[in-house]
Amino acid sequence: MSGTPHAAPEVEAYLNRGRMLSDGIPWADVEAARTAALEDSEVDWFDFWMARADHYTELGERALAESHGVTAGESLWLASLTAHYAQYMWFHDPSRREPGQRRKVELFDRAAPHLTPPGERVEIDFEGATIPGYLRLPQHAGDGPFPCCVLIGGLESTKEESHRFENLCLERGLATFAFDGPGQGEMFFEVKLGPDFERYSSAVLDELERRPEVDSGRIGVLGRSLGGHYAPKSAAGDDRFVACVAWGACFDLTDLDSMPPRTRAGFRYATGIEDPERADEHLLASLDLAPVADRISCPTLLLHGRHDVIFSLEQVEKIRRGLVNADLEIQVEEDGDHCCHNMGHIVRPRMADWLADRLGTTR
Amino acid sequence: MSGTPHAAPEVEAYLNRGRMLSDGIPWADVEAARTAALEDSEVDWFDFWMARADHYTELGERALAESHGVTAGESLWLASLTAHYAQYMWFHDPSRREPGQRRKVELFDRAAPHLTPPGERVEIDFEGATIPGYLRLPQHAGDGPFPCCVLIGGLESTKEESHRFENLCLERGLATFAFDGPGQGEMFFEVKLGPDFERYSSAVLDELERRPEVDSGRIGVLGRSLGGHYAPKSAAGDDRFVACVAWGACFDLTDLDSMPPRTRAGFRYATGIEDPERADEHLLASLDLAPVADRISCPTLLLHGRHDVIFSLEQVEKIRRGLVNADLEIQVEEDGDHCCHNMGHIVRPRMADWLADRLGTTR
Repeated sequence: MSGTPHAAPEVEAYLNRGRMLSDGIPWADVEAARTAALEDSEVDWFDFWMARADHYTELGERALAESHGVTAGESLWLASLTAHYAQYMWFHDPSRREPGQRRKVELFDRAAPHLTPPGERVEIDFEGATIPGYLRLPQHAGDGPFPCCVLIGGLESTKEESHRFENLCLERGLATFAFDGPGQGEMFFEVKLGPDFERYSSAVLDELERRPEVDSGRIGVLGRSLGGHYAPKSAAGDDRFVACVAWGACFDLTDLDSMPPRTRAGFRYATGIEDPERADEHLLASLDLAPVADRISCPTLLLHGRHDVIFSLEQVEKIRRGLVNADLEIQVEEDGDHCCHNMGHIVRPRMADWLADRLGTTR
Repeated sequence: MSGTPHAAPEVEAYLNRGRMLSDGIPWADVEAARTAALEDSEVDWFDFWMARADHYTELGERALAESHGVTAGESLWLASLTAHYAQYMWFHDPSRREPGQRRKVELFDRAAPHLTPPGERVEIDFEGATIPGYLRLPQHAGDGPFPCCVLIGGLESTKEESHRFENLCLERGLATFAFDGPGQGEMFFEVKLGPDFERYSSAVLDELERRPEVDSGRIGVLGRSLGGHYAPKSAAGDDRFVACVAWGACFDLTDLDSMPPRTRAGFRYATGIEDPERADEHLLASLDLAPVADRISCPTLLLHGRHDVIFSLEQVEKIRRGLVNADLEIQVEEDGDHCCHNMGHIVRPRMADWLADRLGTTR
């Protein structure tokens, strides 16, 4: 991979192994990306992963032609996930990021009916925009109605990336609804990052209440990375959420200046505001739990890694001090990185168990 | 990790990433093993992985106490798998290998009832010995009787290691029965490697025929690594097997002298014969498809990696020439290593699809 930002050290920064492997990227591809970088080939990060997406699309199409439904679902999902990682940090080049984002969405939509259990695309009309999400049901657990966990992504993690975590919830008897809100994934093209994410979560709740498959009295919310802000914000805004998980602590955005440059660029990008100073002002004003933290009254779990280089431990303290009315459990992992992705196999099942306990499915 | 054979280069040889990650070892543990080796700590390979097994056992026990059944099953299975990898190449030190093997077996047995779907331990009395295996049923696929795939391990791969591959079969509607035969896993303590593996496979078939959950007209056999010898040997010996997969080509053991030293030591170990020369003679005489190759009449798939350093491409040619009465499909992967473990995410679902097609479950 040649030229800035494609040189090997940069690729090492993109190559978030813990996260990528936990989310389902095959190890062989992680290795191939690293090798490609070392060999300084002409292929850059974006192109490398989009080529993987093409490869998995081809496998998926062949599987469909051969009536191999399980393989078709897995391959097309992997196509979507590799396209996701092509663009996930590619904020400096929207002319590729945005087609990459759209390709990811399209591929996931093709995978969805073939997943086990399948994902149903749900589009919620809300104030002239569309909230896109996927509902999956733990069919093996009986006829329902099922308790449900609403899953929220972060700055550049989206509904398509939560597939493996959904599986952990589904195995434990929880339905899942993953969606993109303002500034996220495909919704970015309609609504940018703003101060009212919780209104979109409430619109999701309105939709889930209309669903006979979902037990509307047992709906929780989990948010990952920046979703660790949106989930408590959503719980503060709507007491129909009866459990909340912040997968990463983000009380406010006061850490912005000390974040890695790519992450800072990503935050600004999500606002849609060109001027960096104005973007930062918008971010600081939009992302702050202080005014609403005391409104969170449901059981809340905060998971954080001590080595998180995006959200500092001060964010954990602010949540500890701010959520005065919640039954709050804080887990800070000594060896954990951002969202404890480096120990995903430990913390992810644990969060799913916590949710299943609170929402009443534990077998 | 200190001292021979624990120095870093040796650990790199043990650290078969493709295989270990495909079988389910967490990436964090693979990394930790490598780091421990680089830091030349006092902990050797065996101790490192047995300590991981203790850790996952503790997680599993805690999960049981908290009624987190899914996590309990996964954690205890991971405990078993890490104990497996502690001892998998530890032929030079039976005083640790053998307790490691027994610990793996015990941990898997504790995991089995909590797996999704659960594993039922089955012990088959056969000529004064016990053939141990686990039956799993694709419960989501209806009431059965189900087609079934019999899974055979290799030189040091055993029934406990096939869990992830079983899941691929189960998702596709196949029941699975994984067992240890002569010289393998826990059966090593009763019967050593010999010339009549197929008689044990037939005893397994006799048992499966008695099971109402299994459709006895639709049973296939798959063997991995040295199991790539045992599976066709079993199909040659019993035409109740209606499909056969050799996951790695091993027609005979003429490659023995060119194998990596640890593998050669492992083959000798499995015979239970102290004298290396006599052990080699026993191996060459016991492991040879030539006398029976023409008796294999069921559809047979051979998967092999061009970069296999244990079984040469000559083995592929011998199978091509020898299986004159089988509907034989040969897949040689240009980029594949031994058993194509380095591309497990591609070849493993493909083998499961092939079996599901032949055994009639494809949805």
